[in-house]
Formats: sequence, structure tokens, C-alpha cells
Amino acid sequence: MSAVKSSAETALLLLPEDEVKRRHDKVRALMTGVDALLVSDNANLYYLTGRVFAGYVYLPAEGPAIYFVRRPVHLEGDDVVFIRKPEEITQTIGLNLPQTIGLELDSETYSAVMRLSRLFPGAQTANASAILRQARSVKTPFEIEMMRRSGVKHVHVYSHIPRLYQPGMTDIELQVEIERLSRLEGCLGQFRIAGSTMELYMGNILVGDNADAPSPYDFAMGGAGADPSLPVGAAGEEIAPGHTVMVDMNGNFDGYMTDMTRVYSLGEISDLARKAHQCSIDIHRRLTAMMTPGTPAKALWEEAEAMVKERGLHEYYMGHRQHAGFIGHGVGIQINELPVIAPRSRDILAAGNVIALEPKFVIPHVGAVGIENTYTLLDDGSVECLTPAPEAIEAFLV
Amino acid sequence: MSAVKSSAETALLLLPEDEVKRRHDKVRALMTGVDALLVSDNANLYYLTGRVFAGYVYLPAEGPAIYFVRRPVHLEGDDVVFIRKPEEITQTIGLNLPQTIGLELDSETYSAVMRLSRLFPGAQTANASAILRQARSVKTPFEIEMMRRSGVKHVHVYSHIPRLYQPGMTDIELQVEIERLSRLEGCLGQFRIAGSTMELYMGNILVGDNADAPSPYDFAMGGAGADPSLPVGAAGEEIAPGHTVMVDMNGNFDGYMTDMTRVYSLGEISDLARKAHQCSIDIHRRLTAMMTPGTPAKALWEEAEAMVKERGLHEYYMGHRQHAGFIGHGVGIQINELPVIAPRSRDILAAGNVIALEPKFVIPHVGAVGIENTYTLLDDGSVECLTPAPEAIEAFLV
Repeated sequence: MSAVKSSAETALLLLPEDEVKRRHDKVRALMTGVDALLVSDNANLYYLTGRVFAGYVYLPAEGPAIYFVRRPVHLEGDDVVFIRKPEEITQTIGLNLPQTIGLELDSETYSAVMRLSRLFPGAQTANASAILRQARSVKTPFEIEMMRRSGVKHVHVYSHIPRLYQPGMTDIELQVEIERLSRLEGCLGQFRIAGSTMELYMGNILVGDNADAPSPYDFAMGGAGADPSLPVGAAGEEIAPGHTVMVDMNGNFDGYMTDMTRVYSLGEISDLARKAHQCSIDIHRRLTAMMTPGTPAKALWEEAEAMVKERGLHEYYMGHRQHAGFIGHGVGIQINELPVIAPRSRDILAAGNVIALEPKFVIPHVGAVGIENTYTLLDDGSVECLTPAPEAIEAFLV
Repeated sequence: MSAVKSSAETALLLLPEDEVKRRHDKVRALMTGVDALLVSDNANLYYLTGRVFAGYVYLPAEGPAIYFVRRPVHLEGDDVVFIRKPEEITQTIGLNLPQTIGLELDSETYSAVMRLSRLFPGAQTANASAILRQARSVKTPFEIEMMRRSGVKHVHVYSHIPRLYQPGMTDIELQVEIERLSRLEGCLGQFRIAGSTMELYMGNILVGDNADAPSPYDFAMGGAGADPSLPVGAAGEEIAPGHTVMVDMNGNFDGYMTDMTRVYSLGEISDLARKAHQCSIDIHRRLTAMMTPGTPAKALWEEAEAMVKERGLHEYYMGHRQHAGFIGHGVGIQINELPVIAPRSRDILAAGNVIALEPKFVIPHVGAVGIENTYTLLDDGSVECLTPAPEAIEAFLV
């Protein structure tokens, strides 16, 4: 992949030719009744080209894609057309305008969609967001390799976490040292999330009672955060004996993210916390054995739910004062992709899915426990863990 | 303001009562022909309530606001109504439905706007984004005080930057140390930007030739970045003698951001770079003298442009291979607010504006030079600099 990177200066397409074809063909196969897509969401542009740029990919059901670029000005390639405004797009497409145009209705603003739809008078509008979300839920081997590489670095960063703790540290102080170490290992920092309502900076560290502070965001866990303008995660409290420290930090090292959580502790923690942590590990074992192509995503949720109830841990499961409605999610370019492992999910697992499982518990006055790993379903039916690392609660040395 | 923070646990409204009234009244004054706004963008929710939550503020032209909350579940206050889905909103509003409803057409997705507009059958839709953007461009004294406090911390972090440099460092390594210091000083990390196409992690450091690498984003400066998935800023090159180091890092310490750029150097830099840096400082002096209520924003652009041409620096101004189309912008909850200081801006300066000015230059093989400060126009007509710090290029000690 390093050969690919070296052309990053000028080539618009930063993926091998066959990889571009594979991705575009996968999207086309989902374009039933849709003549063309016009894509401008950064995550989707990155998927279709291997880079983020300001502009649009026009992907017809038949024929080559056209790349309309506003910025940067130095890109090159076949079918690259520079434009100043979207109104210039249809001049290039010419007379063969689509009857049904797919626009990203779930990520582009109302104003942007209205402006684009006016380019195609009389055309029907279809939802390109749904098509791309579906296509991106099944990763190519190239994408899985990107995630494997992120996972290796992610695991490496976590292996150093126990050494970062210093007595008297707050949750934020520990997080800052993990941020620094991650960044020096090559973490890009950015946490790409689908949807504008969810916000997070570099990940989440939860300690003690703050793990039980409800947050507005649809993440698995909460935390009050340091400020009401970003009310999630670490809140500035000192890590005290008897606390767990849940670390769920950014694994975006190359544009593809892995998602990983491990738990550390200071001193002795309660038996309840240990029991719940073991339940999480057991859920991982059980669910990964069930993760085969064709399995309904909600069957995983139901199995986990049954295990939790059987062990009497339900009131702590996926939160205590406030509960999350899912225990796993697809991950890739964004942290919240398909499939969703939730009670009413209609997703069916497929080879190529990459899924983060995060059955977690919030134990009052202790903190959060449970692990998260990112798994991929390979073509041969096996499940590979992209974040292999010790799973037990590790005590900080003091 | 600390008394306000202490109620953050449960009170929905985290602003003093008169501050809430002042902001809501300011928005209402702009609601000509609009019966009510339904707001859900995080930046706008924070403006109207003092906190981010998952839900909606319903702000009628007359009568009290209603706060529809989906998460977190523990919020309290008058006129707080918990909902699971937006369809429950109109049950609470009852028979007095608006004839014209303002929705955030420039920030909410097409799908979200369509879902909300179906709640008000037969009603006209107006653009709440435009109304709130205008209202937020004129800060209250409370908001300016928040920004003043961010500015103090921002300046403090910058004062330590020369001590963070170590020989042999790359741009990214230096950035990581600045990130760490900022975070330990209380920086929230998050860089709130209006619009989904612009992305940035914690700010931008530009060194040497990388300053001339065009980026897809509409920031003032570029940089290739470390990866084509986030092609902006530091690229991993070692800082070498003769280079400038432009630092434009996150100043979000309390939900309100200041914007600030300073330049450092390693060894001797070219006379051209010094001349351009002085030109930037001189532009700041000239433009702040012009910043009075009633001045057209574009007059500032034109004055700066004339100064640059007069000194023969035009080919380096606001970029070299690629040029930015503005030299200043409003700042507050987001980094790109009104007014915009650009050639075709129709904005007129008003007391309460907070404006970041960033006349910058890219000098090939040296790097970027020029400063950025955040200024506010006070009610008495004076201009206050919220980021007061030495402006000359400071050499790293080696």
C-alpha cells in the first residue's frame, strides 16, 4: 500500500484500479432503478476514490464515474473535471441525464440536496445514503487489511496504558497521555461519525461514578464530560481506589477505524464488577461463535440479553441510569456503520462485515466494565479478531 | 459562571434567566413572518440553552420555548418534555400549530427536514439556519466573556510553545506536544465547524513546503496532512533550518472558541518571509482601526488586498499554489460564523461581532507566515483583542 500512498500528491484515485472497480461495482449492484449517484459526503468520497476532496463523484449505473473537483486544484486523473459550483456538473454529463438520481439524503443538508436536485429537472430522487451504507457494510479484502493495520497499532497503544497511569491522576489527565501516545503511534485523531448529532473527541474514558452520568449521545456509554458543550466522557475526577477505568479510544490510524475497549482498575474492585466483566467476555465468546453469514443481527442481541438476565446483571447492562439500545455496530470509515446489533435490527450478517461488539456494564460507584473488540467475518466463514489483546481487568501499578 | 456550572447535573437550562431571554429575544426579532422555530443542531441547541442534548427547542414567536428531550433522561426544568421520537412534538404543541415553521435547512439532513416538516402539514417552511446564524453573529456580553476566558487560556498555551520544540522533531511531533499542553490547560479538543465537508483535528501546524500543499477544505491554509482520509495540516516532515512553523491550534476551552495563529522559526528565515509577516501585522493594525459598526465586511478585504498588492506580495497571499477566498470570519460556538471578511461578502459589521482576522502568506520552501487574532467589537465602538500575545516570529532555541 505504500506505493499507492506515494502518488497521493496528484492522483485523484488513490486505490488500485481493481479495488476502485470492485467498490464501484458493489455500489452499482445495489442501484436498482437508479440511473446514477451524485456523491459528496466525505466518508463516501473516501470510499469511492481513496481520498477526501471537495467535490462530487458522479457514478452512473453504466459507464465510468466522473470526478467533479472543486478543491484541491492540483488533482489529476482520467475523468477528473474541475468545477467552481455544482451547476457546472450537468454541462459535462450532457444530454444523457438520469431519470432517477441518487443523492445522499441522510448526510447532505436539505439545502444542498435541493440545490443538487434542481440540476436534474424532472428526475426522481433516490436515497444514495442507503445504497452506500449497504455497500460499505461489506468490506473488501483491501479494506479489511487497512483495518487489520489500524488494529495492530490500536492494540500496541493499549499495551502501554498501564505505564501511563500516575498516582493522583484524573480521568482527563490519563486520557491526555493516551491521546498523546496514540497520536505519536500515528493515530489521525479524527473520529468520523455518521450523523451530525453525535460528537466525541478522541474517545471516551470512564471512571467511577462518572460512568453512570447519562449523556445525550447515542454511544454505548456516557459520562458527563468536562463541559456542557460536549457532555460525554471524562469529567476531571481523580481516579480513586476501587474504581475501574474504562478506555474506549480512537483507533483511526489510516482512514479505517478499529473500535476497542479495555478496563483497568485501581486497587481492589467489587465482586459484582468482576462478575459483570466476565459476563462481557463470555458474551464475546458466545456471539463470535454465532457470527456466521446469514445470522440475523438481532439474534446476537437476544443471545446476549439472555446471558445477562440469567446472571442477574440486567440492571447494569449497557448503562444503569440510562441504557443504550445496541451492543454492537459495523465499523470502517465511520464508527457507526451497518450492521447494527440491536433488538429491532433487520440486518443479516454477511461475509465482509466488520463488527465491533461492546457488551458493557455500569456498576454504581465502581465504574464501567466489559470489553469491546472489532471482528471481521471472513469469506471462509471464520471470524477474525482485529483487536487481539488481553481481556482481563488489569490493575494499575502504584 | 461557576454557580451556573454546578447545576449542570440536572437543569436543562444552564444559562442565567436573563441571558436565555436575551438570546431568545434576539432570535425572535429576526423571525419576520415565521411563527416558530424547531431547532436540533447541536451548536444552536447550545446557544439557546447552554447545553447540548438530544432533542429539539421549539421557539415560538410569542410565548415560552418548549424543550423536547430525547436524551439524557435526567434533565429537569419548566417546559421540558421527554419524547422518544419527533412525531410526539405536535401532541404537546396542540392546536396552535404554526403556519410557517422555521427548520434548520442548512445543517439538518434532507431526511431529517422532511420528517420534521411532515409534523406541520400545510405549513410553510422557513430557514431557521439563516435566522440563528444571524442572531449568533452578534454576541451577548455573556458570550464575549466566555470567549475572553478561552482567549486567556489560548494565549497561555501559546506562550509555552517555544519550550516544546526539540531538535529533530517533525511537524506532527510538535503538534502532539501542543495538543497535550492544550488539553491539560482545559482545551475541550473539539473543533466545531458549521457544515459537514470541513474536517480538522485540533488545529493546524504548517512547516516548510507542506504549507504550500493544497487541501480540499475551505480553511485559510492547507497542508497535505498525514493521510488522504484527512488531507489537511501537518504531514510528518522534520522541521529544518530556514523553515517557519505556523501554529493555528484549537482555542475551545468552554464551548466558545477563540482563533489564534502565531509563527515560529528554526534558524534564519528569508527576508521575503519576514516582509510578508510584517505585512500581516500591519494589515491587522489597519483593519482593526476600520472595524466599526456599519463598516461593510468587504471593505476590510479590499483594504488588505490593496496593502498586499502595494508591497508586491500578492502571489503569496492566502496561499501560493491555491488561494483562500477570505481573510477573516466570525467565531464563537463554531469556527466559521458570520460575518465573513471576503470580496463578495454582504455582511455589515455590528457591535457584538467577534471576528478572527487571518491575513497569511505562503512562502515557497520556507512555510507560512502571518498572524491571526480574534477581536470583538464592543458596544462603545472600541475593538478588543481576545488573543493578545507577542506577534513577531519567535525563533526556537536549539
